[in-house]
Amino acid sequence: MSKQELIKPRIMSGFMELSPDKQLLFDKMIDEIKHVYQSFCFMPLDTPVLELSEILLAKSGGEIDKEVYHFTKGDTNICMRYDLTVPLARYVAMNSNTLSFPFKRYQIGKVYRGERAQRGRFREFVQCDGDIVGLETLPISADAECIFLIDKIFNSLNLDILIQISNRNILVGYLQELGIIENAKQVLTILDKINKIGRENAMLELKALNITDNTIEKLLNIISLKGDFDKILPMLENLASNEIYQKGFDELRKVYHFLSAYGIDKSRYCLDISIIRGQDYYTGTVFEAVIPTHLQFGTVCGGGRYDNLAGYFSEKKMPGVGLSIGLTRLFDLLDKNDMLPSFSKTNTTLQIIPLGDHLDSCFTLQAYFSNKINCEVAYEERSFKAKLKDAGKKQIPFVLIVGDDEVEQQLFMLKNMETGEQTKLSKEECLELILKTIN
Amino acid sequence: MSKQELIKPRIMSGFMELSPDKQLLFDKMIDEIKHVYQSFCFMPLDTPVLELSEILLAKSGGEIDKEVYHFTKGDTNICMRYDLTVPLARYVAMNSNTLSFPFKRYQIGKVYRGERAQRGRFREFVQCDGDIVGLETLPISADAECIFLIDKIFNSLNLDILIQISNRNILVGYLQELGIIENAKQVLTILDKINKIGRENAMLELKALNITDNTIEKLLNIISLKGDFDKILPMLENLASNEIYQKGFDELRKVYHFLSAYGIDKSRYCLDISIIRGQDYYTGTVFEAVIPTHLQFGTVCGGGRYDNLAGYFSEKKMPGVGLSIGLTRLFDLLDKNDMLPSFSKTNTTLQIIPLGDHLDSCFTLQAYFSNKINCEVAYEERSFKAKLKDAGKKQIPFVLIVGDDEVEQQLFMLKNMETGEQTKLSKEECLELILKTIN
Repeated sequence: MSKQELIKPRIMSGFMELSPDKQLLFDKMIDEIKHVYQSFCFMPLDTPVLELSEILLAKSGGEIDKEVYHFTKGDTNICMRYDLTVPLARYVAMNSNTLSFPFKRYQIGKVYRGERAQRGRFREFVQCDGDIVGLETLPISADAECIFLIDKIFNSLNLDILIQISNRNILVGYLQELGIIENAKQVLTILDKINKIGRENAMLELKALNITDNTIEKLLNIISLKGDFDKILPMLENLASNEIYQKGFDELRKVYHFLSAYGIDKSRYCLDISIIRGQDYYTGTVFEAVIPTHLQFGTVCGGGRYDNLAGYFSEKKMPGVGLSIGLTRLFDLLDKNDMLPSFSKTNTTLQIIPLGDHLDSCFTLQAYFSNKINCEVAYEERSFKAKLKDAGKKQIPFVLIVGDDEVEQQLFMLKNMETGEQTKLSKEECLELILKTIN
Repeated sequence: MSKQELIKPRIMSGFMELSPDKQLLFDKMIDEIKHVYQSFCFMPLDTPVLELSEILLAKSGGEIDKEVYHFTKGDTNICMRYDLTVPLARYVAMNSNTLSFPFKRYQIGKVYRGERAQRGRFREFVQCDGDIVGLETLPISADAECIFLIDKIFNSLNLDILIQISNRNILVGYLQELGIIENAKQVLTILDKINKIGRENAMLELKALNITDNTIEKLLNIISLKGDFDKILPMLENLASNEIYQKGFDELRKVYHFLSAYGIDKSRYCLDISIIRGQDYYTGTVFEAVIPTHLQFGTVCGGGRYDNLAGYFSEKKMPGVGLSIGLTRLFDLLDKNDMLPSFSKTNTTLQIIPLGDHLDSCFTLQAYFSNKINCEVAYEERSFKAKLKDAGKKQIPFVLIVGDDEVEQQLFMLKNMETGEQTKLSKEECLELILKTIN
């Protein structure tokens, strides 16, 4: 093909494509997360990436958010999923007669948001969601279980996090107590963004809603309550007496009780009344995890309790609680801040290099070794020296040299590339030595 | 929400959505396949599901196949990937300066084809591809390696397959030997579909191309050669002497030599000259795997050698060889034919059931057990009896009962749900007994 006709190979901006060595690491993180979900008996679910627009846009009455990738094929209006929650709602509504509740599922998959690509924002990203869905009721235990899951997942990823926990009903009830009824939503919205806009601006916005100085002070006080449950809970106990406040307070206390039973390290979670997580969705417990040494990463995991998951699709009431990790963004942040665990450029444990015309013996050996370790034959047409040098550059830990003497005696030269040590061994001895060294 | 406003929860036809117990099995198959690829030192790659139309449609000069999902967003023409090969071509062309060759990658991901949904055809399906890509050259060893990989993968899935192997240059050279030059492509196309249309129809179509009866007989003879390499190779040795035929014959012989070195069971592969695999793509070794006891499944894995992977994107010549498994279709066939390995409705090894107000103790125990086994707490608000009955119905193997006495003595009642046996044990003894029983 002539030069002019070549098409420049490129991908769209906002799409992450990792080098294979980093992809290996990314996949290992997914495996860790999966493993934790499974250890808590969550079952896997995989829903289609494409769904009918009437399903995915049910919430907005079919109106298309400009973030959502959508198109028509024939007569069908199709959207790409933009989260894993609406598909879950559709799934439990479709299958409520056959599922057993509480239904615990995890889903690790790509979602799509066609927003303007900007630093740290992706148009395609992997979300790792876990949810517990009940039928009619779901005990508060489930909320504690999700928080413990977050702790276990980030432990398994070797990341020190702080899980900030609240219950929205505390603030909702407190507003009621202060007589803020009509403006309640707007006030919550202002309080929700206080860490972004700052206290001064929040005060101005609250004043604009005709909230008195005295009330504003009370709001700023309660929203700044953050710390150990042991310390903060007593401060909250008598702040308000209405039903919704008491419900929030009781739930928060129970969650704390169960977290203590789980034995989570107390340095890894706290009560933080400023956690609100928007208006629309959550109705009780809410939580967000941050990495205290890297607060600039923002929230690395969030979630909470919702009263009615599948209201658009079913008359059955299905309350749930869930957590979500945006793995693509997290991985990108860890990568850019040199926080990825050390990784090798290769997935190869043993490379077999023929010295002379012994490819067939090499393949026989590969068939043997590959049952236990990652093993490849250097069959490309290059010199023995070049191959050995290359294996070193790739940091392959072991090389097996297969030449005339080796094939005749069935004793092979095993070279530890790190120490430089060379030993002539039978294949069984080679395997034993390698397994002993790498484990 | 009132009944009228409810949206009927459904998915589009042609999209597979498995129940969680089957999804667990599907994921396990993916894990097995991954494991085999990794044991051969293949590295993972994940490319975006969405690519620029100019990239994915490079081959057709931008013309859109009606199978391809495509849409525009702003000024950008976007396609959903319909295979994993074009993205691989784009990837190696983009990264040829940093990759080390031969580049071995596996990719397990969803691809999209918006064709009319019909029995056994999916619009979204998981493909499990492995390819070895060289720079300028790639030894024939790679072809044998891919075939051995197929053998190992299906072994790990516990499926008995037959891998039918040929080399397209045998037929191409033989046509040349018979003087079929101008019509070569059309003749190959007819031979390629002979198993679909039958010998009679093939003869008629060949006659229509003015091929003589004598030549037709020779063609039907060579295409029916199928069996052990030991038997068929000698029959092929002197059928033609031109360069391309000899190249095909030599490569086939070498592949066989290496497959013998790998020690693949001879009942699991054969030489089959009728394997052609279309016109456009493959240029040497070709192979297709079938399940001999279930030939109606068709090809469950296919692949072969191609001369120039990235010709549309790069001036560098990159030959490759690869295999592809359509896992969604395979899983669906196994499911419909009751060939899935037996599976349990649950992923739970131990369910902890509180008897009385002991949820906190249950959570402490769950934190302990979940480090080693899949463990959950039955915290839903139902009677103890109902929970125990449910655990039996779900086939959960072990139940731990946590009541007053148990908490006081820290000795817990472990019930083996299969044998009905009950024993009071410390948590350490419980774990030991469970691990001993399930492993």
